[in-house]
Amino acid sequence: MAEKPKLLQDTTEDVRRQARVLLRSARSLPLATLDAATGFPAVSRALTGMDVDGSIVILISGLSQHFASLMADPRCSVMAGEPGKGDPLAHPRLTVQCKAERVSRDDARHSRIRSRFLRRHPKAQLYVDFPDFAFFRLVPDSASFNGGFGKAYVLEGRDLLIDSSAIDALAGMEDDAIAHMANDHPEAATVYAAKFGKTSEGNWRICGLDASGLDLSSGDSLLRVEYDAPLTESVHLRFVLKKMYN
Amino acid sequence: MAEKPKLLQDTTEDVRRQARVLLRSARSLPLATLDAATGFPAVSRALTGMDVDGSIVILISGLSQHFASLMADPRCSVMAGEPGKGDPLAHPRLTVQCKAERVSRDDARHSRIRSRFLRRHPKAQLYVDFPDFAFFRLVPDSASFNGGFGKAYVLEGRDLLIDSSAIDALAGMEDDAIAHMANDHPEAATVYAAKFGKTSEGNWRICGLDASGLDLSSGDSLLRVEYDAPLTESVHLRFVLKKMYN
Repeated sequence: MAEKPKLLQDTTEDVRRQARVLLRSARSLPLATLDAATGFPAVSRALTGMDVDGSIVILISGLSQHFASLMADPRCSVMAGEPGKGDPLAHPRLTVQCKAERVSRDDARHSRIRSRFLRRHPKAQLYVDFPDFAFFRLVPDSASFNGGFGKAYVLEGRDLLIDSSAIDALAGMEDDAIAHMANDHPEAATVYAAKFGKTSEGNWRICGLDASGLDLSSGDSLLRVEYDAPLTESVHLRFVLKKMYN
Repeated sequence: MAEKPKLLQDTTEDVRRQARVLLRSARSLPLATLDAATGFPAVSRALTGMDVDGSIVILISGLSQHFASLMADPRCSVMAGEPGKGDPLAHPRLTVQCKAERVSRDDARHSRIRSRFLRRHPKAQLYVDFPDFAFFRLVPDSASFNGGFGKAYVLEGRDLLIDSSAIDALAGMEDDAIAHMANDHPEAATVYAAKFGKTSEGNWRICGLDASGLDLSSGDSLLRVEYDAPLTESVHLRFVLKKMYN
C-alpha cells in the first residue's frame, strides 16, 4: 500500500493561499485529540480564532474531553472546509496537524488572544472569564489539502503561519486600527466583502487585522481577505487598506 | 482537573435516540484516525453509510492517509452534527469512538454493504469498484453526546448499534422491499418525510431499510426515520410501514 498517494500534486502558492483562507475563515472546526482515557482519537467541535502569527486559537472548558486530552498530549488535528451542497467530497478541505500550547492568564499573549477571539465570537464574552475555560494555541506542524477528487497536496506547518517582521507592531495597533476603520470608514468592511468575498449582503465589520490580512464578520458569516503579500512594515497598513478599497 | 465532567447528565432513551438519528442521517462525517506516519491524530472527511447492525460504513481510497492509518491502528472516531446557523456550539453533536474492520470483496457482507452504500450515494458508483477502494465498518465502542451548553451525556457503543433478532431476515429482503415501495407506493417516502422529518419539499425515496428504521433521500438531503422500537420479526415490517403512513 502506498504511503505517498500517487495523486499527490505539486503544492503551488495558489494552493497555500486557498488553504490559508479556508482555515482562517472558520468559526468552528472539528478538532481531533488523543483521548487521554482510552488512547482512541476523538473528534469534537471547538470554536476557533487565530493568533497574530496564524496559529489557530481555541477556547475550551476544563471539563471537556479535549481539554484533558490536550493537557496529556499536545498533538492534535483540525479540519477546515464544510461540505456544503452536492457531493461532500467535491468540496476543498484541509487537515492540519498541530501542537497545542495552553495560554495561561498570566501569559503576555493572553490579553491580545482574548481580544481577538471576542471580536470574532462576541457571545464567548459570556464564559471567556470562567475559571475553568482556557485558550490554547494550536501551532501548525504539517497539513494536507484536498481540493476534490485527485487533487491532494502536502503543506508544511509554516505554509499556514505568517512570516513578517511587522507582526508585533501590527498586533500593538490592531485595536486602534479597527476602531478607526469602524468610526471613520464604516462602509469599508462592506466594500471589502463585496470586492473580495463577492458578497453583497450583510452588515460587515472588521473583526481582525494582522500582517497577512483582514477578518470580516457579519452575523454568523466570517470572511477572510488576504493581502497580496504579508506586510513587512506596520506603516504599510493604511496604504494597503486604501488600495483594497479603491 | 475533573476527568468526569461535572455537567454530565443522566443518559435517557430520548438522548440515545437523538444520537442515533444524528449519526444515521449523515452523508459524510469528520473521521479522526491515528496517523501511521506521525502518530498525530488526523481528521479528514469520509462519505458515510450504515450497515444493517448500525455500524458506520465508509468507502475510502487505498491512496489516502486515513486508509493507511486504519490499517495500522483500527481505533478511530467520527463526529456527527453540523454546526448550522448561529452559535456552532449550540447545535447537538456526537463523538463516536470506533474500531474499524476492513470489509474485503470476498467477505459475505460486502455485497449488502455495497448495495446499501450505493443507494445512499449513487455517485459512488463511479469509483466503488476501483481496485484501490475499500469499505470499512466502524463499530461503535463508546460515544459522547453534547446537546448544547451544559448538556453532555456518555453513551455506550451498543446504544448506537441495532439489537434485533430480525436483522438478517430484513437484510435479505431489503432490496425487494425498497423496490416494492418505489413501484407500488411511490408517494410513501414523501409522506414519511413530511410526517417524521417535517419537510414538505423534495422528491423523496427510500434508500435504506433495516430493523431500526428507514433512510430517506432527496437530492442532497438524507433523513433518518426510526421506528418506535426495533422490529423483532421481519414480517412486522409491512405493518410498521403502513402504520407510519396513516
